[in-house]
Amino acid sequence: MPVSPITLFFDFSSPYSYLASRVIEDLAARHDRGIEWVPMLLGPVFASTGSRPLVEQPLKGPYALIDIQRSARYLGVPYRHPSPFPIATHQAARVTVALLQQRPELALPWIHAAFDAYFTQGSNLGDMAQLHALGTGLGLDAGQIDAWCGDARIKAALKANVDRALAAGVCGAPFFVVDGEPFWGVDRLPQLERWLEARF
Amino acid sequence: MPVSPITLFFDFSSPYSYLASRVIEDLAARHDRGIEWVPMLLGPVFASTGSRPLVEQPLKGPYALIDIQRSARYLGVPYRHPSPFPIATHQAARVTVALLQQRPELALPWIHAAFDAYFTQGSNLGDMAQLHALGTGLGLDAGQIDAWCGDARIKAALKANVDRALAAGVCGAPFFVVDGEPFWGVDRLPQLERWLEARF
Repeated sequence: MPVSPITLFFDFSSPYSYLASRVIEDLAARHDRGIEWVPMLLGPVFASTGSRPLVEQPLKGPYALIDIQRSARYLGVPYRHPSPFPIATHQAARVTVALLQQRPELALPWIHAAFDAYFTQGSNLGDMAQLHALGTGLGLDAGQIDAWCGDARIKAALKANVDRALAAGVCGAPFFVVDGEPFWGVDRLPQLERWLEARF
Repeated sequence: MPVSPITLFFDFSSPYSYLASRVIEDLAARHDRGIEWVPMLLGPVFASTGSRPLVEQPLKGPYALIDIQRSARYLGVPYRHPSPFPIATHQAARVTVALLQQRPELALPWIHAAFDAYFTQGSNLGDMAQLHALGTGLGLDAGQIDAWCGDARIKAALKANVDRALAAGVCGAPFFVVDGEPFWGVDRLPQLERWLEARF
């Protein structure tokens, strides 16, 4: 019986999602698991939990800035805190949804390129010109990017991802589900790995 | 030059604080550090961050119940989720403050006894009879417990702990500070340990 993939709900504006994107593939490979990448938007999740971006919260905001950068060092992942932060990521997410459907071989390169652009170079993914540049790097022309971002079916597919996330109990990002077991946060990867090994 | 202790801000109603209380001593001993135990109250912290108890939050609440119990298994710590939860812990914290001041040799046994009573046996620490029973186990009589809980100086010392926590940026519990570096959550102990080893 084929094993199910690790489902990963993520938002391009989430630093901890970026960190997870840099380490989850090695982890999955160690356990012969695939990864189902599910782009979604944290805005509706925060609306449901009554939360808001970490960095906008008293006490938690200043701590988060320390924690994100230390977590990157801990994981050995390059990180430069971007400005502006956070940003609107629905357009980058729509392109991801379209690629997963129509050009799946480009989806993962796009995900890594987009995360790296924002969290190591500070490229604002809310800016269409930046998305065009990322697309060019993968052989996609700007017209195709624009068409996907305006496509009602793609928009609906992204909204369906958000609805699926909320139905799955996603309360932040990154959020992983493995064989029904939920794990929230890049800091839960050690538990996720032990769970894959031992169902502890 | 003597090294400074690991400062640990905690609330008896916090499951992750309980988990930390069960593993922090071994970690500190590995690095020849002492521990400064600082009882405080999460209520004023939540008021400052605009948050509230995890289990009362949509999406996060159901997830937290899974995560707390899985984290206990991951750390090898016994855990039985208590009811009612959360509870008022100011009286238990006042006794802790008093012991740290006046009977320091009993403070750590009290802290462990109180955490274990709530998180393995479900004893409501908001109930004075339960505090009396815990005190009896340590040779303290009920009248002494009651006197401490009603002592204006003890109340003021606990409030000072809360003020100190807020000033230190404490945004939840457990919260650790080591040589000025802040760590929030029992899940940050691997980073805390690496920091002690390598100031990474």
